[in-house]
Amino acid sequence: MTTQITVPQTGIEARRQIREGTFLQPTSGVAPRHVQTNVAILPKELAFDFLLFCQRNPKPCPVVEVIEPGRVEAVLTAPESDIRTDVSLYRVFKNGEFVDEPKNLHSYWRDDLVTFLLGCSFSFEYALMANGIELPYYGTERNVPMFITDIETAPAGQFSGPMVVSQRWIARDKVVRAVQATSRFPETHGAPVHIGDPAAIGISDISNPDYGDVWLQENRDQVPVFWACGVTPQSVAMSSKPELMITHSPGHMFITDLMDEDLAVL
Amino acid sequence: MTTQITVPQTGIEARRQIREGTFLQPTSGVAPRHVQTNVAILPKELAFDFLLFCQRNPKPCPVVEVIEPGRVEAVLTAPESDIRTDVSLYRVFKNGEFVDEPKNLHSYWRDDLVTFLLGCSFSFEYALMANGIELPYYGTERNVPMFITDIETAPAGQFSGPMVVSQRWIARDKVVRAVQATSRFPETHGAPVHIGDPAAIGISDISNPDYGDVWLQENRDQVPVFWACGVTPQSVAMSSKPELMITHSPGHMFITDLMDEDLAVL
Repeated sequence: MTTQITVPQTGIEARRQIREGTFLQPTSGVAPRHVQTNVAILPKELAFDFLLFCQRNPKPCPVVEVIEPGRVEAVLTAPESDIRTDVSLYRVFKNGEFVDEPKNLHSYWRDDLVTFLLGCSFSFEYALMANGIELPYYGTERNVPMFITDIETAPAGQFSGPMVVSQRWIARDKVVRAVQATSRFPETHGAPVHIGDPAAIGISDISNPDYGDVWLQENRDQVPVFWACGVTPQSVAMSSKPELMITHSPGHMFITDLMDEDLAVL
Repeated sequence: MTTQITVPQTGIEARRQIREGTFLQPTSGVAPRHVQTNVAILPKELAFDFLLFCQRNPKPCPVVEVIEPGRVEAVLTAPESDIRTDVSLYRVFKNGEFVDEPKNLHSYWRDDLVTFLLGCSFSFEYALMANGIELPYYGTERNVPMFITDIETAPAGQFSGPMVVSQRWIARDKVVRAVQATSRFPETHGAPVHIGDPAAIGISDISNPDYGDVWLQENRDQVPVFWACGVTPQSVAMSSKPELMITHSPGHMFITDLMDEDLAVL
């Protein structure tokens, strides 16, 4: 006898099951076509500089919603949500050091915490696949390869550092389509930042990613295409060693009520 | 013998002439195809809430650049500029009351002031005209009609209030083109917020604008089309009666080095 796992189909249902502790897996494939987000929680004293950093670097740091100091509900994109309970796994960092991976934030919450919900690649990956572009790691336990580049982000206050990108192999005759399909979604990283030459953006070995898993070229007609990655704001924030920073645990995203198409510009 | 007035053709040249006091007119038509911006300067203690208000209301409040506390140079969009001198006429408000209209900000500048440069309609008006849509007020001393609507902005901190829109009469067979042409420029107000029925957004008399000048319908094939307007952030900020707020004087915009196409999403 097998146990049938029912994957939640909406943001409301996913958040309810996560809050009640009945759904604790990574969220890839959960609530299809709903916008999922990266989570970064910082003290209020850093909030203006971090929001400004995001405004200056919209490709790696697309802001979907900001929850004001001490508030826990994403009023605009996930009404009745609670950011302290509606992510299945969090990571807590103190002075830049990883200290805990809790299932909720009750023991860490403070009235001066500001929550940033930043677009993630799930939305534009769906758009790529809908346009016939294969992503072999999708729906597996493997992750997309990610690289630290020599592209400097635009600094803001104490926040600065290099852009992190994700890389996908795209068939030569699909490259234009990949640009078009992802350009429609500037709030989930948007168009590529580079096409073709890893060395041109400071990547010396494409078979040795800084994060994620290796993805080998299958044939000579595949072109490496690079998109700004949501790891950027986390690595930039962390390198400033904030007294407290809380994020989602990789793969355990916050799920909104927005549909992908709600974020499309055209 | 007539005096030939040479209108500056670039952002750098326009800012130089304004700074030296040799060009003091309104900036419509100056430095063609260069991005011009609304200016809002507020004390640092209001900056996070105001930036968040802009993030939540990108159509009326598209952020082109934010200059950090006490800094005067728009490093990203107008290198070597000085926000204290490079606008030809400013307005100073204390506790929401208009108190002065100076030609520079030397006597008002403080180390805690944050400057917001917000997209203005000049860029998308050029796009409309390039698509064969006539704007009879353009290049005249008349202004586009603007209305206070019953569309509420998304509040942030102490900032809230109704959206102000500009209205243009568009020939019925050009309405789709007008949507397409302006959708390309989300950082200069983007696509219309409403097409067709003034009453549906709380406008009771289209011949009686709240700001700007009347523009009468010329024939029954013209449709009223409404775009979010940069007056919104000014009126919203002012209604919170900040201790100090400085803006450009209407028509006297800040001129960047960006070209309109730099802001196009597709």
